[in-house]
Amino acid sequence: MNSSYDSPPADCLHSACVERGERHGLDFLFHPESVALVGITTSNPLHWTRTFLDAFIESGFDRPLYLVNPKGGEIKGHKVYPSLREVPGSIDHVIGLVNARTAPRLVEECAEKGVRAAHFCTSGFSETGDPDRIRLESELAEAGRRTGIRIIGPNCMGIYCPQSRLSFSPVLPRESGPVGLISQSGGNSVYLVRQGALRGIRFSKVISYGNACDINENDLLEYLAGDPETRIICLYIEGIKDGKRFRKALEKAARDKTVILLKGGLTEGGARAVAGHTAALAGSRSTWEALCRQLGIISVHSLDEMIDVLVTLLFLPLPGGRNAVLFGAGGGASVLIADEFETRGLQVPALSPDVIARLQEFTPAAGNILRNPIDYSQNMLDAERTRKAFDIVSKWEGTDFVVTFIRTGQFVLPWLSGARINMLLGRFWIDRDDLPKPVAMVIEPSVLPQEAEAILPAINECISSRLPVYYSFGAAANAIDLVLSQAERRAAAD
Amino acid sequence: MNSSYDSPPADCLHSACVERGERHGLDFLFHPESVALVGITTSNPLHWTRTFLDAFIESGFDRPLYLVNPKGGEIKGHKVYPSLREVPGSIDHVIGLVNARTAPRLVEECAEKGVRAAHFCTSGFSETGDPDRIRLESELAEAGRRTGIRIIGPNCMGIYCPQSRLSFSPVLPRESGPVGLISQSGGNSVYLVRQGALRGIRFSKVISYGNACDINENDLLEYLAGDPETRIICLYIEGIKDGKRFRKALEKAARDKTVILLKGGLTEGGARAVAGHTAALAGSRSTWEALCRQLGIISVHSLDEMIDVLVTLLFLPLPGGRNAVLFGAGGGASVLIADEFETRGLQVPALSPDVIARLQEFTPAAGNILRNPIDYSQNMLDAERTRKAFDIVSKWEGTDFVVTFIRTGQFVLPWLSGARINMLLGRFWIDRDDLPKPVAMVIEPSVLPQEAEAILPAINECISSRLPVYYSFGAAANAIDLVLSQAERRAAAD
Repeated sequence: MNSSYDSPPADCLHSACVERGERHGLDFLFHPESVALVGITTSNPLHWTRTFLDAFIESGFDRPLYLVNPKGGEIKGHKVYPSLREVPGSIDHVIGLVNARTAPRLVEECAEKGVRAAHFCTSGFSETGDPDRIRLESELAEAGRRTGIRIIGPNCMGIYCPQSRLSFSPVLPRESGPVGLISQSGGNSVYLVRQGALRGIRFSKVISYGNACDINENDLLEYLAGDPETRIICLYIEGIKDGKRFRKALEKAARDKTVILLKGGLTEGGARAVAGHTAALAGSRSTWEALCRQLGIISVHSLDEMIDVLVTLLFLPLPGGRNAVLFGAGGGASVLIADEFETRGLQVPALSPDVIARLQEFTPAAGNILRNPIDYSQNMLDAERTRKAFDIVSKWEGTDFVVTFIRTGQFVLPWLSGARINMLLGRFWIDRDDLPKPVAMVIEPSVLPQEAEAILPAINECISSRLPVYYSFGAAANAIDLVLSQAERRAAAD
Repeated sequence: MNSSYDSPPADCLHSACVERGERHGLDFLFHPESVALVGITTSNPLHWTRTFLDAFIESGFDRPLYLVNPKGGEIKGHKVYPSLREVPGSIDHVIGLVNARTAPRLVEECAEKGVRAAHFCTSGFSETGDPDRIRLESELAEAGRRTGIRIIGPNCMGIYCPQSRLSFSPVLPRESGPVGLISQSGGNSVYLVRQGALRGIRFSKVISYGNACDINENDLLEYLAGDPETRIICLYIEGIKDGKRFRKALEKAARDKTVILLKGGLTEGGARAVAGHTAALAGSRSTWEALCRQLGIISVHSLDEMIDVLVTLLFLPLPGGRNAVLFGAGGGASVLIADEFETRGLQVPALSPDVIARLQEFTPAAGNILRNPIDYSQNMLDAERTRKAFDIVSKWEGTDFVVTFIRTGQFVLPWLSGARINMLLGRFWIDRDDLPKPVAMVIEPSVLPQEAEAILPAINECISSRLPVYYSFGAAANAIDLVLSQAERRAAAD
C-alpha cells in the first residue's frame, strides 16, 4: 500500500501497473491506515451519525478509529476528542458528519493533520438549489484543491470496501466479491448491497459519491477499470461532469470488464429529481441507450434488474445459445414462463420425439406435460424419477441451458409449496460438477406466513450454493436475455 | 335458489333477470345443496385428493358433504361410502377425484343420483396429446350431454365461491369480494386468489375450468357478466372454442363491468405449452391486443400485473388525470420512481413556487428535496411535520393523485426501514375520509430477516385499511397507467 500523502500519479491508471500488482491511483481512498469520524453525536444513540461507528464495529475495522466532537466524552468505550487537532495519532481518512456550513473549515483542519481524503456525508449543498449553498460547495471543493485533500461527496454515503473493512452500514456483508459499484446515490448503493447480498452477490468496492465536488464518476470508473479485485462494474449515474472523459473511461472499462449501467433521470420528472438530488445534468435517453449498445454495456432500468443481471453474470455459466428447456411445476405456469422467455427472444424448442419417448418410459401421462416446457408437477415429489427426467433433458443436444421453475403460491396445500419441492428441485444440481448444461432456477415465492419459514431456508441453501436464483419468470428471462445479448454483440464485434 | 334439476333456461342470462334479483343460468354450479367427493383416498392423508376435504372443512361448508371410495371406512369423522349409489341423501354436485378412465362411468352413476354438475379434477385427457385419451374426453363430454349433467373440466380445480363455501384449497379466504375469475389453469387461479388475498383482494366466484369439455369460457363469461356479486371479471384464457360467441360475451361483459384479460400462449413456446396443458388453440398476439383495445379491456401479461391492476381498481379512487406528486424517502429512489412514472406516460409536474415556499417555511433545506418528487427523508420521523407537508402537497391543484414511496432496503439501519417509517407513512391517510386526492403507497420491501417482522405488520395494517399498496415503483406506475388508460378510452368512446 502506498503510504505517501502525495496525490496519486495520473499515469498510474494503466493495466501494466495492475499487472505488476501495484496499488495505484485512488487506492489510498479504499485502504486508509486510520479513520476519524468527525461530528458524531454524543447524546443520541439513534442519531444517523452513529451509523458509521456501528458500521465500523460490525465490519471489524482493525486500525485506529477516532471519534471527534467538541463536546468530548465517550461512545461505546471509544474516547471522543474535542477536535481533530487533539487526536494523538496520524489520520488518513476523515468521515465528515458535520453541518454543511462547517465543512470547508474542517478541510483546513484536516490539512494540519496530514489527512489524505475527506468524505462528507453531510447534505445541504448544491442539491438544494440555494445559491448560498451552491457557493458553500464551491468553497468546499476549493479547500480540497488548496490543501491537496481529495473530497468524496458531499451528500453521499462514501465507501464500502469489505477487504479493508470500510463500511457505511452495520448490515452489510463482511465478505468481499468481484462486483464494483459506483453510485451517485447513497440509498441506491445501500439497496444494491443489501438486496444483492440476499441474492449471493458480494462487492469489491462500493462508492456512493453524491454531488462529486472533487472525486467524480470519471475518477472512480478509471480506478475500477484497473482494479484487479473488480470483475464487474455497476454504475448508477444521474449526470456526468465531463462527457468526453466519461465516454473514454467507459470504453476502457467495458473493454476489460463487464459494465452494467443504470442511468437515472431519463424523463423530465426524473431529471428534475436528479437536479434536486445531486445537482447533475441528466442527458437524453436515446444518447445513453446508443452509448451502451456501442460500447457493449448492459443497460438496465431498475435496481432489481441490475441485481438480476449480476446474478446471471456471477452464477449462470454463459449458455452457448438461446435454446432453453423449461422444467418445472404447473400447467398455467408453463404457459406463462414460455411466453416470458419467447417474448424476450429466448427459444423454447419442442423436445425431440426421442427425448419424449425416453421420458414416457417412466413418467405417467396424467398430470405431467412432456413437451417443452415440461410440467413435472405430479412426479416432483419422487426425487429419483425427477432426477432421471432432469438428466435426460439437460443432456439433450437441442438445448443450451435448463431453467427449472416453481411458483410456490400456486399450490393448494402449504406443505406442497414449502421446503420439500424447493429442496427437490435444488438438490439435482447443488454440489454437482458434472452438469451438462447451465441451470437457472426461478422461484416465484408466496409470502404466506406459514410458508415463509419452509421456503426461505430452501431458497437460501440454493443461493449459498451459488446457484442463479430468480424470483419471477419475467425477471429471469429479461436478465438472461440481457447477458446473452451483450455476449452476442461482443462476439460479433470480435 | 333454483332447486329444479332442469338445465337452466338460456334466456335467463339477461340483466333484467339480474335486476329482479333472480338466480339464473349457471347459479346452480355455485350454490349446490350437497356435495360428494368421489375418489378421495382413504389411506394417505397427504394425498392430493384430501385437499378438497380440508378445503371444505376450512371454508365451513354447512350443507351435506359425502365422501365416496370403494374401500369405505372413515376420514376425519366422515363416513366413506363405497359408491355414489349408497349415499343416503340426494347429491347436487360431484367432485370427481377418480382415475381418468373411470370418469365417463361416474357420470352415468351421477345420473342415477340426480346430480346436476360434476367437476373432474382428474387429468390425463386430451392435454396429453394421446389419441386414446382424447377419445376418453369425448366420451366424458358425451356422457354429460346424454345425462344432462353439466361437466366442469376435466383437468382443473373447479370452483371457489366463498359465499356458498365451495373451495378447492384450505388456504383461501372465507370472505367474499367483488372480483370474479375465470381461469383455464388451476395453478394460476390458486396463485391469484392466494397472492391476491395478501394484497387485500377478495373474490366472488373463481372457476378453474381446464379442458372445458362441456362448460367453457363462454358459459362462464356470460354468467359472470350477469352476476350481481361480480364487479370486476378477470380472465386467464389459453384458448377459445368459439371465437364469435366469445367476442360477443366479452363485449357484453366489458360494457357492464371492468374486464382484465391475461392471454396465455401468445408465443410459439407458450402455445405449445397451451396445447399440452388444456389442448386449446392459442391465437396470435396482435389479434388479442386489438380485441382488448377495441372492447375497453385491460390486457395484462402476468399474474402479478393482474393483481396490481386489481389493487388499483379496488383501492385507488380513480384519479382525475395523470399528474402525480411523488412524496417519499430517498434521493436515488426519487429519481427512479419519477423515471418509472413518466416512462409510462404519468406526469410528475414541478411543484408551484407557492407550494415550495409553504413547505420551506417548516422544512430544513438539508436532506430534503422540495421539488417533485419530494424526498422527505430527513423529516419522516417527525410525524407532525410530515403530515403538514403531505397535506399541503395533496391539496395542491396541480396534482391529481399522490404516491408515497419508501424503499425499506435502502436504509443503513434496520430500525429505520422497519415499522416506524411505514407506520408514519401510512398513518396520514389510514381512517381519513377527508383526503383531498387519491393516495397510493409504494413499499419496496427488503426481505432481510431482521426487518420482515417490523415491516410486514405495518404493510398489513395498510392493506387491511384498504389502501392501495404496491411493491415496486414500476409495478405501481404500470398498474395506475393501465387503469387510467382504460378509463380514458371509455370516456373517449362515450
